[in-house]
Amino acid sequence: MTKRVCNFYAGPATLPLPALKKAKEELLDFNGTGMSIMEISHRSKEYDAIHQESKDLVRKLMNIPDEYKILWLQGGASTQFWMVPLNLRQDDKPFEYVNTGVWSKKAIKEAGFYGKVNVVASSEDDNFSYIPKKIEFSKNISFAHITGNNTIYGTEYHDWPNTYGDVPLVCDMSSNIMDKKIDVKRFGVIYAGAQKNIGPAGVTLLIVREDLLNRVNEEIPAMQKWITHAKKDSLFNTAPTWAIYMCKLSLDYLKSIGGISAIEKINKDKAKLLYDMIDNSNGFYKGHAKPDSRSLMNVTFNLPNEELEQKCVKEALDEGLVGLKGHRSVGGMRASIYNAMSIDGVKKLVDFLKQFQEKNQ
Amino acid sequence: MTKRVCNFYAGPATLPLPALKKAKEELLDFNGTGMSIMEISHRSKEYDAIHQESKDLVRKLMNIPDEYKILWLQGGASTQFWMVPLNLRQDDKPFEYVNTGVWSKKAIKEAGFYGKVNVVASSEDDNFSYIPKKIEFSKNISFAHITGNNTIYGTEYHDWPNTYGDVPLVCDMSSNIMDKKIDVKRFGVIYAGAQKNIGPAGVTLLIVREDLLNRVNEEIPAMQKWITHAKKDSLFNTAPTWAIYMCKLSLDYLKSIGGISAIEKINKDKAKLLYDMIDNSNGFYKGHAKPDSRSLMNVTFNLPNEELEQKCVKEALDEGLVGLKGHRSVGGMRASIYNAMSIDGVKKLVDFLKQFQEKNQ
Repeated sequence: MTKRVCNFYAGPATLPLPALKKAKEELLDFNGTGMSIMEISHRSKEYDAIHQESKDLVRKLMNIPDEYKILWLQGGASTQFWMVPLNLRQDDKPFEYVNTGVWSKKAIKEAGFYGKVNVVASSEDDNFSYIPKKIEFSKNISFAHITGNNTIYGTEYHDWPNTYGDVPLVCDMSSNIMDKKIDVKRFGVIYAGAQKNIGPAGVTLLIVREDLLNRVNEEIPAMQKWITHAKKDSLFNTAPTWAIYMCKLSLDYLKSIGGISAIEKINKDKAKLLYDMIDNSNGFYKGHAKPDSRSLMNVTFNLPNEELEQKCVKEALDEGLVGLKGHRSVGGMRASIYNAMSIDGVKKLVDFLKQFQEKNQ
Repeated sequence: MTKRVCNFYAGPATLPLPALKKAKEELLDFNGTGMSIMEISHRSKEYDAIHQESKDLVRKLMNIPDEYKILWLQGGASTQFWMVPLNLRQDDKPFEYVNTGVWSKKAIKEAGFYGKVNVVASSEDDNFSYIPKKIEFSKNISFAHITGNNTIYGTEYHDWPNTYGDVPLVCDMSSNIMDKKIDVKRFGVIYAGAQKNIGPAGVTLLIVREDLLNRVNEEIPAMQKWITHAKKDSLFNTAPTWAIYMCKLSLDYLKSIGGISAIEKINKDKAKLLYDMIDNSNGFYKGHAKPDSRSLMNVTFNLPNEELEQKCVKEALDEGLVGLKGHRSVGGMRASIYNAMSIDGVKKLVDFLKQFQEKNQ
């Protein structure tokens, strides 16, 4: 019998067991071809079927309008930090960013190499424990950028800010892509490293409104331009075929359980279990994020002291609850409860934490 | 019983069966962790062991001196086409390239965005059927660039050109990395998409002499600079962990059969079987590459007419010999016989081709 633990890593993170089982089953012989999917040409009809299905799944699950392109890229969100300004800058119009943590700051830094960046709102004054309210972007800007979920601090946007006219809103959804229903039309560009909510590390999903592809200066290397990848259906060069295949299997599973409206309900139930436990712990567990900014994906909390935090992480590990150590910026503990984390896994964690409190308070 | 075919795809390409079996075996539970390697944090000690072992294998197999860094990057050789000039340009010294086919031309085009490019030798006059002789690079250049093996045309360097003084020689070895022993000290930079000879698609190996990391202008985005990745041991951002893991398993196998000197002998034997068959076919099969430029990795040849070529590809497929259609630039057939292709697979192909000739000439 294969041993499986409850995996709360922040990413790369737990994947749906049915997706892993399918991948295992066909690892030596994909679909009767006598080859692993890893061994098949990215120009073959067998791989192309996977490629198209993966995009169809993204489109249908997120209800993405026809005027948006769906791209599979490489290099993670960190690569989009510079590709976004490079592909979206217009004349000398500045870029506007909201700073909600480490990843926002990295995005802001890289954008600075391509134009003037204004930070219009920030929650740095309280160690990024909240999402700023009443975010106001200016009229005459190239684009506006937000970080949809902040893995380190456990905060998440629950309302999207508005932009003026046709100013595109760009969102890094690496850690909350498909965690809840969204209206894609609110965004010009959505990007997400796959390795938290939809697949393994090694591929980045980019959803971009078609008219935005034409802003880029043609006189730059092909790989740097979204339009190159859009024109070639993400097959300008060899795609990361295994990672896309795993996303496809993972999204097959999401579809099978009812899609995003179903997982949204499950995610809210999972998060509620943990936040209720925190709120009912008489201060033994202290949530980092302000209640109205709490993430559905990453639940961050501290214990009365560091010693107890270390003890808790260690004892959890002994119980098969893995990956709960918080990021050094916040300390304490973090439970990442992405789409592939089951409600049973969360219940097991909540039970453990309640018992830990009883024994140690 | 799992069905397996003989896979002659040009890339992504066949992988060692023992590597695939190991990956299958531990797909749901890597090394007793209760998680797939895909689900494990790139910051965990479990993944880090794989990361370090993969680099150690590259270093030991290729006998790479200490003053070279080994990096795992994303974006394929196509990304290195622009990262090479961006990271190696010095003042306004030009870059010199040898043009041996489609991939050289792409590299040349991208380099043009970063400085002046001179093409010092080319085999375009004869549809890239040979590697130019007596290549002479100039003294006062930023770097010299060659394409080690030309997948499309089936040509390969068997001697490396010299450069003056400390001018770095840069080589794209995507399709012949580790196919034979080389003296790494001849090169400043070696790069290779993994998906032909050492692993699956989704990761690129970069071997770079340490002193060359300091040439880059610091004022560009972090992800664009090799030095960022070198300083963070290729973990500046989330690495493509599965692809690196598969390279590690594939290189474990290479080591187990005796390393590069052993595979070089096997590769020469495999190539000889096919080239001898071509040379002894009384002109029925006609090799594209000139004999002294013939690739150990991609054997390209034509039949008397296109109709026979199509028939041959189709009948081969029926015999479980997959991926033999030539690239449109050369037409005909191409057998890619990378490190993971067994001598038995090549013998099967040779027998088939001999029989095909008997029946159809």
